[in-house]
Amino acid sequence: MKFNFGIIINILGILLMISGGFMLFCFPFSIYFWEGDWVNILIAFAITFVTGFLAWHRTKNWKNRELKKRDGYLIVSFGWLIMSIFGSLPYLLTGTIPSFTDAFFETISGFTTTGASILTDIESVPKGVLLWRSLTQWIGGMGIIVLAVAILPILGIGGMQLFVAEAPGISPEKLQPRIKETAKRLWLLYFGLTIAEILLLMLGGLSFFDALNHGLTTMATGGFSTKNSSVAEFSPYLQYVIIIFMFLAGTNFTLTYFALKGNFLKVWRNEEFRKYVGLIFFVTLATAISIFVVTDHDMEKSFRDGLFQVVAITTTTGYVSADYTNWTPFLTVLFFLLMFIGGMAGSTAGGVKIVRHIILFKNSLLELKRQVHPSAVIPVRLNRKAVNEHITYNILAFIMIYMFIFGAGVVVMSLLGVDFITSMGSVATSIGNIGPGLGSVGPVDNFAALPAAAKWFLAFLMLLGRLELFTFLMLFTPYFWRRY
Amino acid sequence: MKFNFGIIINILGILLMISGGFMLFCFPFSIYFWEGDWVNILIAFAITFVTGFLAWHRTKNWKNRELKKRDGYLIVSFGWLIMSIFGSLPYLLTGTIPSFTDAFFETISGFTTTGASILTDIESVPKGVLLWRSLTQWIGGMGIIVLAVAILPILGIGGMQLFVAEAPGISPEKLQPRIKETAKRLWLLYFGLTIAEILLLMLGGLSFFDALNHGLTTMATGGFSTKNSSVAEFSPYLQYVIIIFMFLAGTNFTLTYFALKGNFLKVWRNEEFRKYVGLIFFVTLATAISIFVVTDHDMEKSFRDGLFQVVAITTTTGYVSADYTNWTPFLTVLFFLLMFIGGMAGSTAGGVKIVRHIILFKNSLLELKRQVHPSAVIPVRLNRKAVNEHITYNILAFIMIYMFIFGAGVVVMSLLGVDFITSMGSVATSIGNIGPGLGSVGPVDNFAALPAAAKWFLAFLMLLGRLELFTFLMLFTPYFWRRY
Repeated sequence: MKFNFGIIINILGILLMISGGFMLFCFPFSIYFWEGDWVNILIAFAITFVTGFLAWHRTKNWKNRELKKRDGYLIVSFGWLIMSIFGSLPYLLTGTIPSFTDAFFETISGFTTTGASILTDIESVPKGVLLWRSLTQWIGGMGIIVLAVAILPILGIGGMQLFVAEAPGISPEKLQPRIKETAKRLWLLYFGLTIAEILLLMLGGLSFFDALNHGLTTMATGGFSTKNSSVAEFSPYLQYVIIIFMFLAGTNFTLTYFALKGNFLKVWRNEEFRKYVGLIFFVTLATAISIFVVTDHDMEKSFRDGLFQVVAITTTTGYVSADYTNWTPFLTVLFFLLMFIGGMAGSTAGGVKIVRHIILFKNSLLELKRQVHPSAVIPVRLNRKAVNEHITYNILAFIMIYMFIFGAGVVVMSLLGVDFITSMGSVATSIGNIGPGLGSVGPVDNFAALPAAAKWFLAFLMLLGRLELFTFLMLFTPYFWRRY
Repeated sequence: MKFNFGIIINILGILLMISGGFMLFCFPFSIYFWEGDWVNILIAFAITFVTGFLAWHRTKNWKNRELKKRDGYLIVSFGWLIMSIFGSLPYLLTGTIPSFTDAFFETISGFTTTGASILTDIESVPKGVLLWRSLTQWIGGMGIIVLAVAILPILGIGGMQLFVAEAPGISPEKLQPRIKETAKRLWLLYFGLTIAEILLLMLGGLSFFDALNHGLTTMATGGFSTKNSSVAEFSPYLQYVIIIFMFLAGTNFTLTYFALKGNFLKVWRNEEFRKYVGLIFFVTLATAISIFVVTDHDMEKSFRDGLFQVVAITTTTGYVSADYTNWTPFLTVLFFLLMFIGGMAGSTAGGVKIVRHIILFKNSLLELKRQVHPSAVIPVRLNRKAVNEHITYNILAFIMIYMFIFGAGVVVMSLLGVDFITSMGSVATSIGNIGPGLGSVGPVDNFAALPAAAKWFLAFLMLLGRLELFTFLMLFTPYFWRRY
């Protein structure tokens, strides 16, 4: 069996055309705000769209071939890569970010919905380019939805077949038929929630432009802001609105879909959702109490700051309402560990995901039980159903590889001359697609000062994390390229 | 089935009598150096020995009952605990360490062969007490040998049945018969190597007392020194001798036994041993080059400092020949990660152990292969043999729990007001039974300044790590106490 390179290039062409189309969406804003970026936005659009069109056109007669699983790995990995390369054109052509390293970093940070930025003065960037920056995250979010509910379950990656089993009718070998149906339904939901948030933000007095940008980056759990201080100076109302939508963006979209159809029982019966709510509740409680004790904030402000940062990190959005590394060592540690949790599977959130931690935790406890009853078969149960042993196995391997990459990543960063805390923070935030890290890439800092090699390395980690490790790692194994 | 509390107490009594006997061994040194500690050493001996004798005597008619697996968990856990409580008597009675918290910390750090110390001026401690301090580690080492090659494999903990499969003839339910035979043989080896090291150290000009103490604590991979600067001021010859014996102490004793019998092929065919040597070789290379680049040391000194610290941390001995946190951030990170590796299974070393990392690493790679061939059964292979899936499973769970305890431990330490780096260093070094940590418990510092609660918590972690997690954690599960 060979790869269907024709159809792979065909689809990458379509992705580039879509990406280019979104650039065009920035054009009216460039005209309206008239900051001189409109020509370059148009050129960026033209290059991206034409390249995409040519790739698509030259491979047109391939498009009805059937996609195989292995083609899926290539499309997903190269899709994200190629969109990030062309997506850096608006920054480069307008001169907003003159270095390709920086522009690529900013773009892949967008498409992977990470939100780590090398911009030191966001407010001086032309509005058209700023909108493109927010759009990269929103487009990335669209990609993740289809990845999480349709592609990864078919590829059998990291237990995704288990978590999104609710999304109906997926046959193991054929990619196309059901993907479109599921994706369309959830994209509509994604689109609707984004609009709802934009309206609610405008109701709170935010300008249309700011509301639009924050709406786009919240629902993608991206976290790019149009303000230098992120959302720290927003009113309590605006912060609460953002909290609610971050929470929704970190929830399995299939569940939200059921909730909107009135099927609340289905939502509450979902074990991952209950743990997601419970986690946020208890960690917020601990955080709010700590803030109240160590600062002079009143109870509401302590609660809001705590809730905001807990939700922002758990959902891997990464907005900053306050410098959480400045409160107490305890909270620094807590938020650092929170970076390894992540939101729900089937959402736009990154990280390990809550359900994998549930499986891990249950399995660890059961291992002690297995020790006492060596001959009994004791499977992990999720939502009252026994989990296939091989899926449990796969999830454990996933978390191991995640931790291993984290450890190796910290070594690499420190080899590049970055200090220990900054190394840990930047690696954890990149592989978890969160945004702010610790040390010199902390919540109120940015990634500009890192050496170029470190930026490329972190960009690599963002992609690795976003594609649930296996999808991308697979390309580096001999098994993948061998005929079978 | 009930617990055989009679025989459990009987054995704990024997352990206390042995422990007391070793205290008596310090008596001639107290007399010879005449620092006023001889009376209190005698009292400590009397209390320990008499308590042990009474416990043993009162349960004499139980001693021929058969031990069951569950009794094993209790004997091991309480054995270490009770010896640590009575073992703190020499410190308390002589007034060397007046606080019970500190004395218990120092003692359990000894018996678990960790080597973390609360003593700020080691050289002012009476020689008899110092010898007791070294002896706690040596006794601990004896305990670990029998634990690793005889008890844990029977309990089926963390894959130990796999790693020490070489030790012959262990039947699953009966504890006694073969333990004595295996333990005796390996204890003789342990004893012989200790004597050999003491002689070689004396040949290098070390006094009998210093040679004795360092011999005792090297072979236990303990790391207590009689010098305030640890072994930093020892001659190159002495440091090389210690490197060799640390290396041997971190090697599976069964393998060393075969090597001494001339069966080198068996040793070299052992995959864990090859990886152990390879790990030390490559990490030393990276370390030596880094030291040579950033300091003004010559090549020999760079190599020796690098090799010494790599072997000291890998084998979890924890002697300090130089402040490795002072070289470069890269080496700090490298040594920190090295804390999570550990020596070979079946040695006196602590930590995760190299063989578990081999299984983990292979399994992670194979998981990618399984992804490509979903229906194939692809087991991990160790020493060319397929590893039972349930053992692999158990090992993954072990590492997960290890990492989870590390994370939770850092949170607890930071809650107690300890800074992030110190929290990470102290937790990693305690659960890995190493000795020096990072930050304010770094290689040239000690644990004296930590809050009392932190000391108790770290003591708990030392015991947890030493007993390969499961043995001790088991006591906290309902499965263990329920009749079955």
